[in-house]
Amino acid sequence: MTETDDKTASVTRRRALALGAGGAAATALAAPAVAQSGQATIEWKMVTSWPKDLPGPGITAQRIADNIALMSGGRLRIRLFAAGELVPALEVFDAVSSGTAQMGHSASFFWQGKLPAAVFFTAVPFGLLPLEHITWIEQGGGQELWDELYGPFGVNALMAGNTGVQMGGWFKNEIMSLEDLKGLKIRMPGLGGEVMRRLGATPVSLPPAELFGALQSGLIDATEFLGPWSDTAMGFHEVAKLYYAPGFHEPNGTGEALFNSVAFEGLPDDLKAIVRDVCRAENARSLAESEWMNSGYLRALQNKHGVEVKIFPDDVLQALRTTSEDVTRSVAEIDEISERIVKSFLRARNRLSQWSSLSTRLYLDSRDG
Amino acid sequence: MTETDDKTASVTRRRALALGAGGAAATALAAPAVAQSGQATIEWKMVTSWPKDLPGPGITAQRIADNIALMSGGRLRIRLFAAGELVPALEVFDAVSSGTAQMGHSASFFWQGKLPAAVFFTAVPFGLLPLEHITWIEQGGGQELWDELYGPFGVNALMAGNTGVQMGGWFKNEIMSLEDLKGLKIRMPGLGGEVMRRLGATPVSLPPAELFGALQSGLIDATEFLGPWSDTAMGFHEVAKLYYAPGFHEPNGTGEALFNSVAFEGLPDDLKAIVRDVCRAENARSLAESEWMNSGYLRALQNKHGVEVKIFPDDVLQALRTTSEDVTRSVAEIDEISERIVKSFLRARNRLSQWSSLSTRLYLDSRDG
Repeated sequence: MTETDDKTASVTRRRALALGAGGAAATALAAPAVAQSGQATIEWKMVTSWPKDLPGPGITAQRIADNIALMSGGRLRIRLFAAGELVPALEVFDAVSSGTAQMGHSASFFWQGKLPAAVFFTAVPFGLLPLEHITWIEQGGGQELWDELYGPFGVNALMAGNTGVQMGGWFKNEIMSLEDLKGLKIRMPGLGGEVMRRLGATPVSLPPAELFGALQSGLIDATEFLGPWSDTAMGFHEVAKLYYAPGFHEPNGTGEALFNSVAFEGLPDDLKAIVRDVCRAENARSLAESEWMNSGYLRALQNKHGVEVKIFPDDVLQALRTTSEDVTRSVAEIDEISERIVKSFLRARNRLSQWSSLSTRLYLDSRDG
Repeated sequence: MTETDDKTASVTRRRALALGAGGAAATALAAPAVAQSGQATIEWKMVTSWPKDLPGPGITAQRIADNIALMSGGRLRIRLFAAGELVPALEVFDAVSSGTAQMGHSASFFWQGKLPAAVFFTAVPFGLLPLEHITWIEQGGGQELWDELYGPFGVNALMAGNTGVQMGGWFKNEIMSLEDLKGLKIRMPGLGGEVMRRLGATPVSLPPAELFGALQSGLIDATEFLGPWSDTAMGFHEVAKLYYAPGFHEPNGTGEALFNSVAFEGLPDDLKAIVRDVCRAENARSLAESEWMNSGYLRALQNKHGVEVKIFPDDVLQALRTTSEDVTRSVAEIDEISERIVKSFLRARNRLSQWSSLSTRLYLDSRDG
């Protein structure tokens, strides 16, 4: 098995970013041909924030649609729309809220402008690792707060994808000390961008499809995106060679399935259960896939594409950590629901980080020797 | 939310270990009352290696049965049998192979006597962490090898539960150096027991239900089991106060769902897909549950029960690591299928450990400061 052996190796950056209508037709063909006798067929639209088949989230969204069709015996069929096909990438939440689509696939940090605490359901700087995040949502009260946050908009969300621990981003020039962050034009959404701003950088907001061109032209000096797998498809290594770790700003990459509440509540109990477990299973499957692909693509970036993996210097990491705590806690001051979300998140981090240190960290220290 | 807040807090060790016929009746009641019109109802038996409702694997097995019934609209109903109800804990594999039961829930390392390489599908010393293990099975060729290993017995397996990174076990006396392992009577199944034997300890083989009594009476000096959650239910803290980390011998705790191949292949495609995704979803759910419970019970053991968490001394860890590598590689010499399993596992560990070090370990180092 080669390092980047996978079914999507032929997906180039250009193809990954090409938005075409052909994808929806392929979806319909993949669904079981015949619904079970005596059962009505329900047809839903799923709008997404991703280019068609984008390695990671784009593939995940399509698998969710396919598996719901398969497990429901064709009774619930979901047609997927790539970003821009039905609504733009950043209007997915509104489209699900209004009922333009019954379902969406996106990431909660895109709704930060409308709902500041939404970012906690994707990732926050020095927050929870993927398994810790899943644990907070499933066991520590996170799901209930997420439901409460989206409830006024008639939207429900479920975890439905995970791109894993992210990298710290692609930099054209080395970061030698805190000084080098001053004036740095960097694309970093979410709270990480605010951390960078407080440390003197200039965060630039850009949608995924424009990142490669902006980095190439020098409009930005650095960009984060996801991990080695998705980043390779974006082609950043062609125009920047320094790949930084750790991904302090997004130690987790939860993708969310959004549901129009009326549409979801209208499903019979067995279909509700199928939708929930398909999302939960895809969440696990995609995380494993990200780990496998990221581990292989990381090697390929280093060995075949001359990419140098760098670690942020100690003074930068120290400043990032301190500032991240300030930024994270500042969200609690915005409104009452934000305060409860921040407190629940920090309580979970406190509890889970003790266990992670004793189990995962100590184990990795011992295994690495 | 208190540290040990959960729906099973009232499950005491005694109740957890009580095997009663009442459980099966409760299961039947929990299944949907009416199958979908026009669909035949399929009834399966699931034999398990666990006491009824044992925190962790016992709860997981029951949820799998319940969710398959729910998502199939009652078309596939599974009656669960606790260890000893239909067959003894360690005869689950044979019962599924022979068709006595269509399904089982257990752990692969129990079949080590029959199939030496089976242990690789639970955990091996200094092997893969939970997320790495899931990744190997799902993405790195692990599932195909597992199918090949069990195939001659007419059995298929799926990951269907995970108790997370384990602790190193309960010790009555402190381990100051390698000398203290000499003559130590310890319960440690799988390859970890062989590692201990090579370092001079005396591994003792005992089923879970006999562990508490053996530790109390002094028949054994130490025992591992799972993590803080399940271990608390077993009551070990009442008779030993030193709780060691890391769980070098079992950094992962995969529970397996076993299927009689003829029964599984007889299912229609939608039910096959439901069974597969219910197992995958439960695998994720149970891992999150284990993390949450382990983190809370660890605190309770320390703060309320006077348990002292200890780290194995450096010379012991060094010897454990070296000996573990020898023991792990020795399995490859047994037969051809074992050799391929060991090689695939070690290749995955090599690839994934580089990524884990750069992502998880570096991130935890930075977050902890």
